Amino acid sequence: MSYNLRLLISCPDRKGLISAISSFIAMHDGNILSADQYVSEGDKQAGGNFFMRLEIEGDGFGLGRDEFDGAFAPLARRHNMDWRVTHTDAPKRMAILVSRYDHCLIDLLWRWDAGELEAEIPLVVSNHPDLASRAEIYGIPFHHLPVTRGSKAEQESAMLDLLSEHEIDVVVLARYMQILTPKFVRSYPDRIINIHHSFLPAFVGADPYRRAHERGVKTIGATAHYVTEDLDAGPIIHQDVAHVTHRDTVEDLVRLGREVERRVLARAVRWHLEDRILVDGNRTVVFE
Amino acid sequence: MSYNLRLLISCPDRKGLISAISSFIAMHDGNILSADQYVSEGDKQAGGNFFMRLEIEGDGFGLGRDEFDGAFAPLARRHNMDWRVTHTDAPKRMAILVSRYDHCLIDLLWRWDAGELEAEIPLVVSNHPDLASRAEIYGIPFHHLPVTRGSKAEQESAMLDLLSEHEIDVVVLARYMQILTPKFVRSYPDRIINIHHSFLPAFVGADPYRRAHERGVKTIGATAHYVTEDLDAGPIIHQDVAHVTHRDTVEDLVRLGREVERRVLARAVRWHLEDRILVDGNRTVVFE
Amino acid sequence: MSYNLRLLISCPDRKGLISAISSFIAMHDGNILSADQYVSEGDKQAGGNFFMRLEIEGDGFGLGRDEFDGAFAPLARRHNMDWRVTHTDAPKRMAILVSRYDHCLIDLLWRWDAGELEAEIPLVVSNHPDLASRAEIYGIPFHHLPVTRGSKAEQESAMLDLLSEHEIDVVVLARYMQILTPKFVRSYPDRIINIHHSFLPAFVGADPYRRAHERGVKTIGATAHYVTEDLDAGPIIHQDVAHVTHRDTVEDLVRLGREVERRVLARAVRWHLEDRILVDGNRTVVFE
Amino acid sequence: MSYNLRLLISCPDRKGLISAISSFIAMHDGNILSADQYVSEGDKQAGGNFFMRLEIEGDGFGLGRDEFDGAFAPLARRHNMDWRVTHTDAPKRMAILVSRYDHCLIDLLWRWDAGELEAEIPLVVSNHPDLASRAEIYGIPFHHLPVTRGSKAEQESAMLDLLSEHEIDVVVLARYMQILTPKFVRSYPDRIINIHHSFLPAFVGADPYRRAHERGVKTIGATAHYVTEDLDAGPIIHQDVAHVTHRDTVEDLVRLGREVERRVLARAVRWHLEDRILVDGNRTVVFE
Repeated sequence: MSYNLRLLISCPDRKGLISAISSFIAMHDGNILSADQYVSEGDKQAGGNFFMRLEIEGDGFGLGRDEFDGAFAPLARRHNMDWRVTHTDAPKRMAILVSRYDHCLIDLLWRWDAGELEAEIPLVVSNHPDLASRAEIYGIPFHHLPVTRGSKAEQESAMLDLLSEHEIDVVVLARYMQILTPKFVRSYPDRIINIHHSFLPAFVGADPYRRAHERGVKTIGATAHYVTEDLDAGPIIHQDVAHVTHRDTVEDLVRLGREVERRVLARAVRWHLEDRILVDGNRTVVFE
Repeated sequence: MSYNLRLLISCPDRKGLISAISSFIAMHDGNILSADQYVSEGDKQAGGNFFMRLEIEGDGFGLGRDEFDGAFAPLARRHNMDWRVTHTDAPKRMAILVSRYDHCLIDLLWRWDAGELEAEIPLVVSNHPDLASRAEIYGIPFHHLPVTRGSKAEQESAMLDLLSEHEIDVVVLARYMQILTPKFVRSYPDRIINIHHSFLPAFVGADPYRRAHERGVKTIGATAHYVTEDLDAGPIIHQDVAHVTHRDTVEDLVRLGREVERRVLARAVRWHLEDRILVDGNRTVVFE
Repeated sequence: MSYNLRLLISCPDRKGLISAISSFIAMHDGNILSADQYVSEGDKQAGGNFFMRLEIEGDGFGLGRDEFDGAFAPLARRHNMDWRVTHTDAPKRMAILVSRYDHCLIDLLWRWDAGELEAEIPLVVSNHPDLASRAEIYGIPFHHLPVTRGSKAEQESAMLDLLSEHEIDVVVLARYMQILTPKFVRSYPDRIINIHHSFLPAFVGADPYRRAHERGVKTIGATAHYVTEDLDAGPIIHQDVAHVTHRDTVEDLVRLGREVERRVLARAVRWHLEDRILVDGNRTVVFE
Repeated sequence: MSYNLRLLISCPDRKGLISAISSFIAMHDGNILSADQYVSEGDKQAGGNFFMRLEIEGDGFGLGRDEFDGAFAPLARRHNMDWRVTHTDAPKRMAILVSRYDHCLIDLLWRWDAGELEAEIPLVVSNHPDLASRAEIYGIPFHHLPVTRGSKAEQESAMLDLLSEHEIDVVVLARYMQILTPKFVRSYPDRIINIHHSFLPAFVGADPYRRAHERGVKTIGATAHYVTEDLDAGPIIHQDVAHVTHRDTVEDLVRLGREVERRVLARAVRWHLEDRILVDGNRTVVFE
């Protein structure tokens, strides 16, 4: 079965990196299907950082699936690279966490069913039972892990076990209304995607549509970001907005916001699954 | 010379207001060219507020320019109306305040010259001399009132005298980099329009593009609002955004932001000049 | 059970219409919740046309549900009005026609389930069996009426019978891939909404995404319109676009287009259901 | 004085191109500041085409300005490359052609003055005298070449002489209302940028706003494209739109359109000046 490799690299910038990397690929008869590159500004002393994403055809490539790492490691070491390689025939395993709002879940599952998302979805997890049927329509097991004040630590632990058991690569918070503990967050660094229902950094925290209405804004937004230990402060992946008017009530903002949220989240998830995102401190490099 | 009247009304909502107002117009043989109306939600006890904008043809209207107020006052009193009437052949007198950035000024003057803005512009005032030629191209007097640490109060006073002398109706801060004193703000309630170079309430205060870049946002914005005594907290008139990527430096954000700023400010100014904006607490009702 | 009335009027413009209409409402103790009005330009001789939409509170209104027509008719006749009144507790009965693409159907049903669409949906009809489960999840009967070259007239006739039997008010073509006959179109004047997958009038007819790709456009669009006997030429209700780049293949355009199509169609349907659209020749007046 | 090189390449796709090119740069100690690459789909037999844009630091590069061509030519020949190299300290020489509308001209000149456009502007040419002062404010010579029915060929010839004399690299039609002859077009292949005031391919030809209004569209657009011998059919560089409503008259469309036109044209011109556009048949590859 044919596949492509995706090679993602970040390292301190220096001369000759593209040549070194592409020559390595050429030496092994690889066909580069796409190449994206970016050098961050950096500061005066340190210089910038180099980011690259390559997609290489598996057919005809001289390095077998198991040989790549060994062959590439010396080059990576010499240039101090953070790197990873993925294969398009091994889609990521994605867990979706939800509470009661269904719009992001339904949209993700529809897109997945339509072939827009390269992923396996072994499970949907929720602290409420309401959305079970939404997942089950698509044949995806739904796990209900209710959270009460006392049971939170325990249930999160159960959830981590469940994710680990299903070998989950990426966790999507599709309007999951519980705050994750630092322990959970550290288990999936740069691999938990949240949708926040405001245009961050405006309206961090709870109830952003009500606060947006009170402030009388003329545009509302949504923000997809990686989750870090600081609430709503992780690296932003994507943002978009919708225009509103004085006629729109809080309920209208919620309705219009749903449309923005699902669109922004789906795009962020798609980019993550296609290995288009590299994290650069608290910023993201997105090779669209 | 023919003209239209614009009647703007806000008052506590009650039954029969549209009928009472439109019958008053009809009784005097007025032709209503356009009518916009809105009732705010209000809270449980108080009920909502009623807002209306009517444009009435002057030709054939039975009330002369000087008779309208006397004829309408009793009705207005009965319904507790805040109201005003303007005439389209008496455009507002607008002062533009600038510092060193020219993009908003150039855009406003170009639109004014193209007939997009119903206004007279008797003067441009600046705390810097740089943009004198930009105004003078269009034959508009440019006043340079330099502000130093010690002279601020004095210069603001001179500016108020100047505005008063020129019978200014509306003051546009086209990237004017001085904070106005409460005294100044109180002199032109709901009649000073500022453009803030961020998507408020994100990045209130100084240097929003640098802070947006540090936060790694994927969208930047601009906000036109009426100036109140609270910095960047006045009623929002209009907002818009532009998408940015990891490739955009702070300088790129500034460049892209200029385009959004001038567009957002021009639209807010246009709406104000056409009496399309009513203030509802800290929110605006905009009858586009 | 409480309800509102929606009164929609179009007639030749003349003085005093708003007064006449709102006084009629006031005379019967009606509370106007919202009023929108527009006068078209018209040509030199004929003058413009007047369009109005009023929403009136049923509670406390002096005219009973059965009395309104009789009471309003004389006024309507005097001013040559086209008019209709609807009641918010009698939502329209909507049929959805689909073929094989599911994105518009799923989106409409999700919104309907979320309470965004004021309608009853007694049936989904398709010329293919594929999407039966999509409708049945929501408990909506799915009718499969296969169309072959020979059976088209007969099946359309069966469909008209079905719609009539279910007292359908509005027909939504959610990517229904059959061209309707003039007879069908004439049965539901200004009551069949289609989504065309291009930015009309660009790419009328078949295969618009492929043709857009060949032309090398940088933006694709979708258009919701009322169906008339001229293919893709009926009154446009709503349009929107998405930006594309040289990297986007025809398949990418299809994927991106799905998002625009479902959004544009949903908005048009919502406006229709809320009686926000009046047809003015081949144009629409939309009171958002 | 320091500068960067920009290398633009298109050729039939094959393995090893990125490696060959970047190794050539590395061999001469070049520092690649940015690299963009794209492979078109192509058809079954022919395979796709390869497009690349590299920006290389001049400082420290082992090839002098005069040596690059000789050194690169053999590699280029071997891979059948169309290629060119430009230097950032030699900005393109741009002529702007206008008629009577000033919005695109004013916007381009303001951006140029603000440092947004890497160009020299030796002249503005017009078939009308009206906009002379717009150019002269910025110290740019304005040439008036009136065109009458009989004088068209002659005047175009004079214009070509003028452009040639000023060593013009790129011609911008900033709402220039004359159709250029094939001879003129052939003199500047892929180097004449036009702004068409519609969303092509909708409303090819004259008077698009009036026709858009008649069709009742809800969105208007503008298209920047390279001029070819087929009217309005050349490769599209950029497009954008603005939403309109039933309230917008033809004059409103013109006003709203001006904003879109100037923005779309400015962006296309900026990309061209920064060598970000490669032509691929009747499509453009834009490395933003």
